[in-house]
Amino acid sequence: MKDLGQRVLDGEQRAIAKMITLSENNSPEAAREMKVLHPASGRAQIIGITGVMGAGKSTLVSELAMEYRKMGKTVGIIAIDPTSPFTGGALLGDRIRMTKLTEDEGIFIRSMGTRGMLGGLTSAVYDVVEIMDAAGKDIIMVETVGVGQAEVDIIKIADTTVVVLVPGLGDSIQAIKAGIMEIADIYVVNKADRPGFDRIMAEIESLVDLTTEAGKRSIPIIPTVAKTGEGIAELRASVDEHLELLNGTNEFQANRRRRYEAELIEIIRKRLMNLIFDESIFKERIEGLIDQIEAKEKDPYSAAEEILSQVLK
Amino acid sequence: MKDLGQRVLDGEQRAIAKMITLSENNSPEAAREMKVLHPASGRAQIIGITGVMGAGKSTLVSELAMEYRKMGKTVGIIAIDPTSPFTGGALLGDRIRMTKLTEDEGIFIRSMGTRGMLGGLTSAVYDVVEIMDAAGKDIIMVETVGVGQAEVDIIKIADTTVVVLVPGLGDSIQAIKAGIMEIADIYVVNKADRPGFDRIMAEIESLVDLTTEAGKRSIPIIPTVAKTGEGIAELRASVDEHLELLNGTNEFQANRRRRYEAELIEIIRKRLMNLIFDESIFKERIEGLIDQIEAKEKDPYSAAEEILSQVLK
Repeated sequence: MKDLGQRVLDGEQRAIAKMITLSENNSPEAAREMKVLHPASGRAQIIGITGVMGAGKSTLVSELAMEYRKMGKTVGIIAIDPTSPFTGGALLGDRIRMTKLTEDEGIFIRSMGTRGMLGGLTSAVYDVVEIMDAAGKDIIMVETVGVGQAEVDIIKIADTTVVVLVPGLGDSIQAIKAGIMEIADIYVVNKADRPGFDRIMAEIESLVDLTTEAGKRSIPIIPTVAKTGEGIAELRASVDEHLELLNGTNEFQANRRRRYEAELIEIIRKRLMNLIFDESIFKERIEGLIDQIEAKEKDPYSAAEEILSQVLK
Repeated sequence: MKDLGQRVLDGEQRAIAKMITLSENNSPEAAREMKVLHPASGRAQIIGITGVMGAGKSTLVSELAMEYRKMGKTVGIIAIDPTSPFTGGALLGDRIRMTKLTEDEGIFIRSMGTRGMLGGLTSAVYDVVEIMDAAGKDIIMVETVGVGQAEVDIIKIADTTVVVLVPGLGDSIQAIKAGIMEIADIYVVNKADRPGFDRIMAEIESLVDLTTEAGKRSIPIIPTVAKTGEGIAELRASVDEHLELLNGTNEFQANRRRRYEAELIEIIRKRLMNLIFDESIFKERIEGLIDQIEAKEKDPYSAAEEILSQVLK
């Protein structure tokens, strides 16, 4: 049987799933196979979809995926669930709607929950993007709730970021407060058949007017009703138009570089933290230090220095 | 003039502010002074206030702070703004309402934005809690939007976590989805004078019924109208009742230990990341490695191993 990495390169769905699981578990095998994948990565178009909860992002992602499938493109979907770090369980309600996609061999969906303090959501997502990319997916969509720091960091690796808003009290204000407007390459006003549509359109239009520099691209605003598919073709066209723009200015390549940089930083961070907190030699030592910190015999900064002096050259 | 650490221990407001800024900037002086503070920390009662945006958390925090002030207690407030990591600026709209508090010497307020990838919001917040604690604040309130991974991690160091909900379409469902219900020690239904109050109360009551184990404490649900101060005294009583419960079971001390553990982990993480990404010797080297990764001459995992072999024993 072929090596796992090779099978991922061949685009085998089960190999992709296994590779992602290995990577999430920080397995040494994962690191070895990830090395095999790298040369094939960097080709996929990465689309970030973010917005407040209840904006209908999952449906929008499903519909957009199907739009790309119609064009013969393969799609990877990474759905970040803002689930509890306490149970580790993911609330899959939203995902169930995506099941109709899962029977299509050209689509690969991965739902990811938030992870523990040492693992880090961010690094896991970078690996999954790299895996799907190397497996030959043409389009990779990353869906997040754009409020937390980790979640916004993730969106930064996207080539095109779509910020999804919905009509209704305070939604647009909330998005601005959440700081997600500044990362938008495209605005979508989903649930455009709802009351309040005109008001939110007007709000975003004036925001775009205010923030567009003279002679520069102004951010498009696409109304959609994801449930019925309305506006999805326009959204797809707008995303691809933005991609062309990136290609014209070498921004696409610059994004690859930023992604590799973020990935490198995360791998180093993960390795260092695992070294110190997962190795049994340190675990006991750290327990002892926390005892001393609690008893006020030592302070956290001095304890950290002790540990570091043991691992660093 | 006295050393900064000593002035913080004396509770000097300006010294506290300066100490927090030094710590946010990762200054070596900060680490030195933090060591001075540690023996005086661990006494404050830490209250986490979390919930969706627009729930009126800032007003609630202000009112609760004034309630504690009436009892003669001093209060520190840490307000985490879910602002953009791209501008670094904080949208201070919500904070302005707190200004009436700032003339009171018994209250110290710090607003914190999200921070860059290497600094880390979490570690900065732990330091600020430790500083306010050592400065003798009796109560420390940490206000977050409880959706992101980093934000939920922060709330874990609280002795009592208050989850704030409001009447209105989908709010309660959203909170459940965000995984913040599982961390609640107390529920608050703020804006209790709004339509939909009965419905959300019924929803939370049945949730509490479902999740309370036989013979165990059931989570209290406090209706409030923070704007008018209604229900704030009841909330304060409920928080202190929960604290007594913690004291009776040694949970208060266990929380201190968890906090010190989280703090130690964060200091180590911060030091390691600064060592690798802020030291000029590595900066150039990392740029070169990213060039190679981009050119597919090297993969990120091998690059990480190269860097690590240079710093680790």
